[in-house]
Parts: sequence; structure tokens; C-alpha cells
Amino acid sequence: MGYHPPSLVSLIENLSRLPGIGRKTAARLALFIMRQPEDKVQALARSILDIKEKIQLCSRCHNFTEQDPCPLCRNQERATGVICVVESPGDLMALEATGVFRGRYHVLGGVLSPLNGIGPDNLNVKELLARLESEEVREVLLATGSSVEGEATANYLADLLRDKGVRITRIAQGMPLGSDLEYVDEATLKKAVNNRQEA
Amino acid sequence: MGYHPPSLVSLIENLSRLPGIGRKTAARLALFIMRQPEDKVQALARSILDIKEKIQLCSRCHNFTEQDPCPLCRNQERATGVICVVESPGDLMALEATGVFRGRYHVLGGVLSPLNGIGPDNLNVKELLARLESEEVREVLLATGSSVEGEATANYLADLLRDKGVRITRIAQGMPLGSDLEYVDEATLKKAVNNRQEA
Repeated sequence: MGYHPPSLVSLIENLSRLPGIGRKTAARLALFIMRQPEDKVQALARSILDIKEKIQLCSRCHNFTEQDPCPLCRNQERATGVICVVESPGDLMALEATGVFRGRYHVLGGVLSPLNGIGPDNLNVKELLARLESEEVREVLLATGSSVEGEATANYLADLLRDKGVRITRIAQGMPLGSDLEYVDEATLKKAVNNRQEA
Repeated sequence: MGYHPPSLVSLIENLSRLPGIGRKTAARLALFIMRQPEDKVQALARSILDIKEKIQLCSRCHNFTEQDPCPLCRNQERATGVICVVESPGDLMALEATGVFRGRYHVLGGVLSPLNGIGPDNLNVKELLARLESEEVREVLLATGSSVEGEATANYLADLLRDKGVRITRIAQGMPLGSDLEYVDEATLKKAVNNRQEA
């Protein structure tokens, strides 16, 4: 691509390093950015730099934050007795967007994955145990994903917390809403039958 | 999303203004960027700013360039007698990537689109005519797209150039390679039959 302006080539290369962005999409984004007004482009570049400069991890829940402890941990209107354990800040964002949970969070920073060398020491597990000591916790809601590794992590944590005098719960698994039995995978369907509830 | 760090929210908003990037993808990209090392993030932001600062339009072919005239127009190894007319710099990039064309380009900056108020005066049409005067042009290859508007633009230009003493050609239309007759749309199939060539 030596015939293209080097700055364009460089932007395309940088954009195509982002997840899910191939070379063609990167080229389309770069041409779009080039056509944008100066102030919009500066705002985009500025916000990319800001995110590295301003954001740190909350020392309590390990979510991304600009202040420590984070607003979620400092918010007095949220229930203090329930901690929802999630894999990542992205999962926390997804859960918060629903507005269904009004307690505190704890971000593990991943899931157990022996094949990738990720054990309990690589996750914020002992930090979770410390919070059970220092905070008045009644319930730990295990909200790791439904993947094999998410399940294994939830099971591991459930065993670990068993004798700590807290209620241990797991988010429900079953049919996703709006789905037909015919099109749902077998494992989900089995789970949905086994987890059936009184109607 | 008031509970998220403002700089994260701001980056997500800026990213979701890019074409084809929805809020969820933007959030995923933002979280990815946040996990990247400082130097990678600065390189990305820098390249976004660079593209606005360094790139201008070539006064001859109207492609993006850092120097005027652009390297394609200055390259003495490219044929000077053939001008390939394309809609956009993106189309030029796609064509150059194939390496099949070794002449000069002319970027129209769009297609005729009366419904959107785009007439010949809004495109680099008179600039094309001026090049026929000032350069030794033997052939104009019309490489606008196969959309209705791309076709109309090619027809318009063909009529306009008819008596200028240059050969006027149009990129071929027919079956895309690797496709089955069964799955190709009717209009393409008709074109492929009508444009049949000696085997």
C-alpha cells in the first residue's frame, strides 16, 4: 500500500489492531474519520488518551473508575449487604444497564482457566474474601458467565464461600427470552427443564 | 450510564459515531483500548490527529495525499494516457490493491444523485474535462460502481466525453468470481448473458 498517504496507512494499521476490525473495516473507518470535522476528530483522539490517563481500578470492587473508591462503592443508596461477582468491567456494565441489581459489585478480572494458566491467584479472589471480613455481607451473587469456565469459577467460589456464613446465589440459567424451543441448543434446553419453577 | 467513569462514557460515545459501530461494539472497543499499553493507545490517538493535519486532496486527481500532486500523479512509471474515473478514494484504494491498473486516476467525490441534490457541479467533473485539455489522454476508464447511481454517472460521463477524441471504456459487469448461477441475482445474470464474450 505504498501508494497511499503514510498517515492514512498508519491509521488503518492502528485501527485494524482493534478486536473485530479487519483491514477493510479499518480502511472504511479511516476514510470516515478523515471526512469528519476537525473538532469531532480531536474529541475522538482526546477521549482515547483520556481513558488511559484518568481511569484506574477501584481498590474495593476492581471496576474501572476515575475516583477511588468508585461511585458504585461510595453510593449510599445501594444495598451494602449483597455483592455481585462478575468476570469483567464489561459484564458489570451490561448488568448495570438492566438496572435490576442495586447492591455492590466485585470484579474478578477473568475466570479460572487452568489451560491458560489462570488460577485463583490470578483473579481478585482473596480480595473478595477480604471484603467478607471487612464489610457486612449477607449474600454473594455469582454472576460469572454460562461458559464452562464461568461455571467452573462459580462452582469454585461457591465451595470457597460455603462456610463463611453468607448466602451464596447464582444467576438463573434457562431459555433466553424471545426464543423458540426448536432453536435453543440442547444444553440450554436441558438446563431449562431441570431448573423448572412453579408457574 | 451515569455510574460509569465519564471518560469511558465519552470514548464509547465518540466511537459509536463511527459507521457500523453500535453502542455494544463501542463499549467492547473502549474496554479493549483501556487494556492496551500506553504507547499503543498514544499511537492510535496520534494517527487519528495526523490524518486530519497531514492529508489534503491532490489538486490533479483529488485523491487523498500528503504531498500535492500525489505520488500516483507524480509517478513516472505509470501510464499517463489512461485516466480511471472512480467515485471515492476508498474505491481507488480497492482498485490499487488489485494492482491491475497502472495508469492515472480521477476521483469524482461521489455519484450523480438528483434526489440528494448531487449534480455534475458537485462532483469533480469539470476538473476531469480540464485534464483532457492539459494532459495527453487516450482513454478514460469509467470505474464508478454498479449501483443505479454509479451506472447513471458512468452514462452521463460517457455522453459528455463522446466527442472529445478519447476512447471511453467501462469496467465489465457480469458474474462475480466464485459464484453459482443459482445464487446470483437476476439483474447480474441478465448482464452476464448479454455481455457474453468469445470463449
